[in-house]
Amino acid sequence: MTQSLLNPEAIQKPTLLLNKDIAKRNIFKMAEKAAESQVRFRPHFKTHQSAVIGEWFREAGVEAITVSSVTMAQYFARHGWKDITIAFPVNPREIDALNKLAATAKLNLLVESRESALFLRERLDMPVKIWLETDTGYHRTGISWNNTDEMTAILSILKDSKNCTFSGLLTHSGHSYHARSTGEIVQIYRDTVTRMQKAKDALASKGFSGAAISIGDTPTCSLMPKFDGVDEIRPGNFVFYDIMQTQLGSCTVNDLAVAVACPVISNHPERSEIILYGGAVHLSKERISVSGSATCYGFISTGDIRIWSPPIPDCRLINLSQEHGILQAGNGTASRIGIGELVLVWPVHSCLVVNLLREYVTLEGDRIPTLLSSP
Amino acid sequence: MTQSLLNPEAIQKPTLLLNKDIAKRNIFKMAEKAAESQVRFRPHFKTHQSAVIGEWFREAGVEAITVSSVTMAQYFARHGWKDITIAFPVNPREIDALNKLAATAKLNLLVESRESALFLRERLDMPVKIWLETDTGYHRTGISWNNTDEMTAILSILKDSKNCTFSGLLTHSGHSYHARSTGEIVQIYRDTVTRMQKAKDALASKGFSGAAISIGDTPTCSLMPKFDGVDEIRPGNFVFYDIMQTQLGSCTVNDLAVAVACPVISNHPERSEIILYGGAVHLSKERISVSGSATCYGFISTGDIRIWSPPIPDCRLINLSQEHGILQAGNGTASRIGIGELVLVWPVHSCLVVNLLREYVTLEGDRIPTLLSSP
Repeated sequence: MTQSLLNPEAIQKPTLLLNKDIAKRNIFKMAEKAAESQVRFRPHFKTHQSAVIGEWFREAGVEAITVSSVTMAQYFARHGWKDITIAFPVNPREIDALNKLAATAKLNLLVESRESALFLRERLDMPVKIWLETDTGYHRTGISWNNTDEMTAILSILKDSKNCTFSGLLTHSGHSYHARSTGEIVQIYRDTVTRMQKAKDALASKGFSGAAISIGDTPTCSLMPKFDGVDEIRPGNFVFYDIMQTQLGSCTVNDLAVAVACPVISNHPERSEIILYGGAVHLSKERISVSGSATCYGFISTGDIRIWSPPIPDCRLINLSQEHGILQAGNGTASRIGIGELVLVWPVHSCLVVNLLREYVTLEGDRIPTLLSSP
Repeated sequence: MTQSLLNPEAIQKPTLLLNKDIAKRNIFKMAEKAAESQVRFRPHFKTHQSAVIGEWFREAGVEAITVSSVTMAQYFARHGWKDITIAFPVNPREIDALNKLAATAKLNLLVESRESALFLRERLDMPVKIWLETDTGYHRTGISWNNTDEMTAILSILKDSKNCTFSGLLTHSGHSYHARSTGEIVQIYRDTVTRMQKAKDALASKGFSGAAISIGDTPTCSLMPKFDGVDEIRPGNFVFYDIMQTQLGSCTVNDLAVAVACPVISNHPERSEIILYGGAVHLSKERISVSGSATCYGFISTGDIRIWSPPIPDCRLINLSQEHGILQAGNGTASRIGIGELVLVWPVHSCLVVNLLREYVTLEGDRIPTLLSSP
């Protein structure tokens, strides 16, 4: 048990707890693996959204970061980050903010259409690095990896731009979140790299050589022992992980670095249910299916929350209202937990929970703000 | 079209728009119906969470309100509300805040267990009104309506308390959200009232007479032409409504008072998809099934956002990442909408969207803060 100054008695409402030791271990582990593979580690900061936690990455040697919005880029630029990738297609409505940012940091932007390329060529006042967002199978955004014509059309537009320098190909293999086995995740990594290499070679044959390859999603980056065939990795969620990642096999429950302390406010042993103060506005409505088909909005641990003990079996959040969490608590657990006690909720998707709760309390009792609590 | 000072060109990121005329019409319609039925209208303020919008209710004669957390009660008490029901089981960890609140406002608390009754008898320093939370079929919280023994046991505990005055029975028929027809919703209202009346009579026969009956959920309160058999209604969502309510038949699309303006950031007509800047951190992951089984996170309108035109057919948000919204846009819509254009997203659950976006912009261009933007 970590020596803790956190006083559970002081917790009155749903509170985002952070196990600093585990988060730092997750960071160093990924940083070390990237260093061994000699790839740039450009972690995605959308998960933690905190300048304080950003410093823990700096301690691990990180100098370049990824964010998912211009707002996040502004926040981290204010906190001294000088090399930022906004891993989101350029939103033309934020061009003024992008020009300002590019004046203070090395800015990496994603382009996936001729429309955006023409816009940037016209409207960028400051130099930026351009990455072609490449679709290697997720089919959310990006140019299909084998659509060399479209890629070269975009690069031909940008070639005439005085402020755009082509850096490489960037992909997010988000389909790894739909994998049904760790073997499938490893295969997604391999397919991704093969496709990115082919796209790179095709571009080189058209006169656009030297493209770097950037990939990034927590499942593949966690499961691959090394990162062959790429230049940069951008995972984000791995700093805290969550129940979704344990289900995918990206991590074990011992790697979970955030949980939500929730007071019990009602107890119905007659239907094996406990009601928590902790609902959709604290935990988000992200859900997974467990044991085949049962809906799950989170697991729980009981007992002293500071012990950070792993989720107990036979208990899961089966529904959330705005403020209520409905916990199905098997094996007599419901009758053992009194009103006013705290349980630890292990969230399904840590990124969304951080975004909702906007502030951490560490097991040492320290408050850590985020972008959303201290703009 | 409302005369508007809102400048769509100034919208850079997902922005919560509020049609004040429609919200006020929704408020006055419900207030009028309550007045005609001679029941107290105690609207739930968890949907809008805004002192400014609270004033619109005051204009409609509202003096008593409902909230879902102690934090909300504190906020509205600071803004002059003097009669507040916290429609959430008492959380013993917030007893100090409750005592402070009870010193400044008439506070109504929910009790549903002997454990909580004993706690309040011991720890309340100020007078409060007590409502027995009654389960009439939703099975989330509350004492079953026919469990007279448990109710009388709780009331016997509270009888000895100098600070607790029994007010009545309170229920939330949240199962109306699972109804498959408006007829079923009307039947839920009737069953709720019958059960509440029986519980009231049973309590009277045990010496606890004069219990008021409080009900409240937007589907039944919207669909019932009058409120026979109850003393108080507490709907909340009706102020804005949302897609979930249109699907239930509680309202029409002409009653929708909030929508999220989202920039288009990517366009893939080859798979009939448009990608929006607007994801789970803006719209929440609340979803419904439409046309049988298709998952839907929201509908959209295109064209001038100020016109507030109803959702277009064949378009729905089929998936959300943290910042991205994936819009399936049939009938050639995808090829008609350019990158940088705005669409209006009609959210599935307005309460959760307000909680995430934390500030409104009216069609007149005014910013309206909430509890979360101005603590």
